[in-house]
Amino acid sequence: MKEAGKLAPKAAGPGRIITLTTDFGQADPWVGMMKGVMLSINPSLAIVDVTHEIPPQDINKASFFMGSIGRYFPEGTIHVCVVDPGVGSEREPVIIQTQHCFYVGPNNGVFSTLDSRIKKSAVIKSRRYVPGDVGATFHGRDVFAPVAAHLATTPVEEFGPAVKKLVKLDLPKPRREKDGGVSGEIIYFDRFGNAFTNITKEMVKTAKAGRAAVPLRNLEVRGFSGFYRSVPKGAPGAIINGFGLLEIFSPDGNAREEFGLEMGDRVSVGRARNRPR
Amino acid sequence: MKEAGKLAPKAAGPGRIITLTTDFGQADPWVGMMKGVMLSINPSLAIVDVTHEIPPQDINKASFFMGSIGRYFPEGTIHVCVVDPGVGSEREPVIIQTQHCFYVGPNNGVFSTLDSRIKKSAVIKSRRYVPGDVGATFHGRDVFAPVAAHLATTPVEEFGPAVKKLVKLDLPKPRREKDGGVSGEIIYFDRFGNAFTNITKEMVKTAKAGRAAVPLRNLEVRGFSGFYRSVPKGAPGAIINGFGLLEIFSPDGNAREEFGLEMGDRVSVGRARNRPR
Amino acid sequence: MKEAGKLAPKAAGPGRIITLTTDFGQADPWVGMMKGVMLSINPSLAIVDVTHEIPPQDINKASFFMGSIGRYFPEGTIHVCVVDPGVGSEREPVIIQTQHCFYVGPNNGVFSTLDSRIKKSAVIKSRRYVPGDVGATFHGRDVFAPVAAHLATTPVEEFGPAVKKLVKLDLPKPRREKDGGVSGEIIYFDRFGNAFTNITKEMVKTAKAGRAAVPLRNLEVRGFSGFYRSVPKGAPGAIINGFGLLEIFSPDGNAREEFGLEMGDRVSVGRARNRPR
Repeated sequence: MKEAGKLAPKAAGPGRIITLTTDFGQADPWVGMMKGVMLSINPSLAIVDVTHEIPPQDINKASFFMGSIGRYFPEGTIHVCVVDPGVGSEREPVIIQTQHCFYVGPNNGVFSTLDSRIKKSAVIKSRRYVPGDVGATFHGRDVFAPVAAHLATTPVEEFGPAVKKLVKLDLPKPRREKDGGVSGEIIYFDRFGNAFTNITKEMVKTAKAGRAAVPLRNLEVRGFSGFYRSVPKGAPGAIINGFGLLEIFSPDGNAREEFGLEMGDRVSVGRARNRPR
Repeated sequence: MKEAGKLAPKAAGPGRIITLTTDFGQADPWVGMMKGVMLSINPSLAIVDVTHEIPPQDINKASFFMGSIGRYFPEGTIHVCVVDPGVGSEREPVIIQTQHCFYVGPNNGVFSTLDSRIKKSAVIKSRRYVPGDVGATFHGRDVFAPVAAHLATTPVEEFGPAVKKLVKLDLPKPRREKDGGVSGEIIYFDRFGNAFTNITKEMVKTAKAGRAAVPLRNLEVRGFSGFYRSVPKGAPGAIINGFGLLEIFSPDGNAREEFGLEMGDRVSVGRARNRPR
Repeated sequence: MKEAGKLAPKAAGPGRIITLTTDFGQADPWVGMMKGVMLSINPSLAIVDVTHEIPPQDINKASFFMGSIGRYFPEGTIHVCVVDPGVGSEREPVIIQTQHCFYVGPNNGVFSTLDSRIKKSAVIKSRRYVPGDVGATFHGRDVFAPVAAHLATTPVEEFGPAVKKLVKLDLPKPRREKDGGVSGEIIYFDRFGNAFTNITKEMVKTAKAGRAAVPLRNLEVRGFSGFYRSVPKGAPGAIINGFGLLEIFSPDGNAREEFGLEMGDRVSVGRARNRPR
């Protein structure tokens, strides 16, 4: 209870921040209803949409969001994730508290890779914070929204016993090759068609890499760019992006479409070679 | 004036809540302009987007939203709806106050089925709350936004005389069949392709129904599910959803696409039969 | 410093308003991260989305937004625009302060046509308001978000030296024809397919115009409408819209699709003629 008390003062000003990440889209009233439920419980909350455009039931993508947004928000922020194909079944609704912030959602893998050490957790059981007439189809509104709103002023322990086993997705990991290079894969495309890989800045450094390749697409890039427009239009570029990850791009273009890249495409980095392709 | 005064204290914290439901989409600056106008009048308002993705001029869908979101928001919330093909013509701009909250928008049917008893209303006439240079194309910005912002601190009566006739859409109603079953239709699809019907939980109960069918699509479901994943993947399911309505779904799938369902498809529920399909 | 001090009190209530206009879309976590960065610096900010659906790298469209939203927001509002194909290259990150409000973004043309006189400006140079580890791909999060958040409480001068040359786009201008008419072009389509032209209300007046035409599409409209539904369904209409611009529309329809209109189509207005078309 001390920790929650300690965090409370950080929520001064417009109130504690709650973020929402869902696969609900923006054409249905579900997100609005969740906000209404939260504001009915605590009208001083500041609610921030992260996205509602996670592809339906794409737990993998949701876990990328949960693993990358935490550090950018103030301490004590409550991140709610509702990508929940198993709603109403035996999967547990949970709260995770890290050194930095809180997460609320289903225990189905969306919290596989949080960016701060886990400190406490709870399986949501207490009927005190969840209305009695919970249906089986819309826990976003009936469970996660009220719990997140109460969590702004209530310690984690009050919601239920600690989580026994946090479900983790089997996410692809980059690996070191025999020749000293590193092999990873494309794990995310953004709106611009930039291809994020799971190869980190540190791996690129230790491999003393000077080129990147997507063998399946016959694509090879020599040298890493300092900024997008440093390579000519139409040519592929490789850059360490704002998340510390190797990214394949096309300047002012769409790398995904232009080079035919797909999720899971193997990407390798290695020393620059002198022989022609 | 007493009611408005009574509601005011509920709006403590970040100020009174205004929600927006429009068919403006999110690619144009119109919604942002409406927010700017409201915040210029009252910077302490908390503005919540319900959706801006109502299909252009779809009054029917807008009325579903207006009829279902009210109860989830705090008392005194102001719900603004701008789906307004008749903008600038003789259709009236109105305010409706129910036992629970306020609605602002055109009197064109969008307020056909509110979920709380109407207490007061006003046809917006007073020039005091609407800028003098109102154009004929964008009442969202020029009429509804300023009126909603002023309504947070002004009683309904001040805006104009009571509404004489609230326009109501001729919405489909379920009916009791001779065999004791109930016959309704599909009235809404959400992003996941779940098909909402207008058959309520109570109707299903009084019909002692044990099966649901969409005859046109040759689809029959025996038994009602407790949660989505209780039926096998690929099979149709029927469930009483979070709105107390019978819903046809496909677990982890898209019922609309997989079963070829369409808006208005007749759905019937009845007693379980023993003979094979 | 005096100006900023003078503006500060206007930001009472929920704090200073920051608006966001980007080409990031809503499916990626970038916008959420920007909000997190801003709220981490100043939790009392009220952040308003204008749009994140600017087509990727469409500086032209972004400049239309920047030129038209300012007047609708409260004095002192900070408008952030991140449409920035040259991110990380030599293009300058800038702050523009007008008589009415502030703009933050790249100096690449997005601030070509602001709707209030420029009073001060700064090229963002001070490392005090920008974290040290700025990457080359995501200045929205790493530069513009922290600068905007600090700008709520910091005078423009503190961020760097005045902008020497504000980049301006070569935007199409309407021109007076020999016969007294005015010739302009279609500069914007909204979600409804309404075609905005660059011909203003004043030009229509001084030309004593009574008809509008899009010669390339063989489209002619006699008389200007007072509101959309004043012309029969299926027929083209012309109206002075809520931005004081001549607009071609189809009542309850989509003028862009129905009449085959395109961006840049020449539009002319002139006196009404008596001879048949």
